[in-house]
Amino acid sequence: MLKLSLNTATVKKQWTLAQAIDGCARHGIRGISPWRDQVAAMGLAQAAKSIRENGLAVTGLCRGGFFTAEDWRDDNRRAIEEAATLGAQCLVLVVGGLPPGSKDLEKSRTQVYEGIAAILPEARKAGVPLAIEPLHPMQAAERACINTLEQALDICDALGEGIGVAVDVYHVWWDPKLQGQLKRAGKRIFAYHICDWLVPTRDLFNDRGMMGDGVIDLPSIRKSVEAAGYSGFQEVEIFSEPDWWKRDPDEVLRTCNERLAVC
Amino acid sequence: MLKLSLNTATVKKQWTLAQAIDGCARHGIRGISPWRDQVAAMGLAQAAKSIRENGLAVTGLCRGGFFTAEDWRDDNRRAIEEAATLGAQCLVLVVGGLPPGSKDLEKSRTQVYEGIAAILPEARKAGVPLAIEPLHPMQAAERACINTLEQALDICDALGEGIGVAVDVYHVWWDPKLQGQLKRAGKRIFAYHICDWLVPTRDLFNDRGMMGDGVIDLPSIRKSVEAAGYSGFQEVEIFSEPDWWKRDPDEVLRTCNERLAVC
Repeated sequence: MLKLSLNTATVKKQWTLAQAIDGCARHGIRGISPWRDQVAAMGLAQAAKSIRENGLAVTGLCRGGFFTAEDWRDDNRRAIEEAATLGAQCLVLVVGGLPPGSKDLEKSRTQVYEGIAAILPEARKAGVPLAIEPLHPMQAAERACINTLEQALDICDALGEGIGVAVDVYHVWWDPKLQGQLKRAGKRIFAYHICDWLVPTRDLFNDRGMMGDGVIDLPSIRKSVEAAGYSGFQEVEIFSEPDWWKRDPDEVLRTCNERLAVC
Repeated sequence: MLKLSLNTATVKKQWTLAQAIDGCARHGIRGISPWRDQVAAMGLAQAAKSIRENGLAVTGLCRGGFFTAEDWRDDNRRAIEEAATLGAQCLVLVVGGLPPGSKDLEKSRTQVYEGIAAILPEARKAGVPLAIEPLHPMQAAERACINTLEQALDICDALGEGIGVAVDVYHVWWDPKLQGQLKRAGKRIFAYHICDWLVPTRDLFNDRGMMGDGVIDLPSIRKSVEAAGYSGFQEVEIFSEPDWWKRDPDEVLRTCNERLAVC
């Protein structure tokens, strides 16, 4: 069974990063994936020190990307530096969607490709693998115009070393080409994110389910990810306004641990 | 410019089918695509007669499909008969998602393929083209496990004559392979549905926008659809609980007519 990592978004309404690090230690969770605003709030050096002292693997830093925004160049440069300082296994790229007023998805996609190509040399130099996270098509306009693994891997193929994908079951579970594309990804799977798809889903962004509460066949996807050569962590990332963000965070972590049995 | 057709879902909370037929006549809309529950409420023979007397083209009958439900065989047989009686240009197939308790999308997809293969001979005999409508991936669990044009066209390729696709911009606008797959579809585009993708979208099913109010590049998609060989109607289909279903239906139809200028 792959080890558990906590993406701090899962308890972001309840805990600071310092509290999340303590929580991981307390619950025997050996990996963590922090968000940059939380790292900034704690202080980068202090966050790196505390994570190191607690022996946690940093399974990713969330996030770089948003190449369709004005300040993408500087922002991604800083994100790469932060990921290097934290010893993150990858910098997750949420690539950005349509800028305000635009209906031109192809133009956004070109900007994203060029943006990734521009920052990749710096990421390589810093020893930070970049992980493109294809987001669910329902988030194409607002968050990411890379919406399938196939599309992400086409970019990886074109750009070579140091770039791969973050596979989040929530975003890819529906894809009829999923199995084939996971195989194609192979060692380029840099992160594996889990949660569940609820029926009904009440919100396009913040109504993800705890593993086992929805309809995603998690064991099947995990097996394919492992067969492709991935042996890293299973990172729990649950955005849940109506449910898990309202609960006692210790209960959330306890439940994550218990539900690994159905993943 | 392609002519306008009214999918009656657009005013289903306000009007019966009889009222929608009158409304189309009053607003100079020359096509209609009714839903079967409304046809049944009006009476099939009466609906066919009224549509014919008003000179409306039936750009589709909504819907057959749901091959993952228990009664799919009889239900689709009846749908084909009704489509034939109405002289519908196609029977739209919303293929069905995961049955209750299932997490096996591949099994659903196999059932769908076998279901379509089973009814196709009857549809051919009745002279009713079947149009697979790929639905947005966010509706994979509940309504349709066919989620891309590529996936739908693979089925069409395998089954031959009498089967094609219904292209609804709402479901396919995000697809990075859209342009290529529309070209591949060619004359197998049996229906073209329009509306818009709102930012933000507040509901996964019933928050579609009026053309021009969202981020879909409608002229670009229409041009590709026409370039592929389609010269039928543009069928407006707007599910809109918070907005258009609450408005005066004459205002809705007037707006549809006006907005054709941005389609």
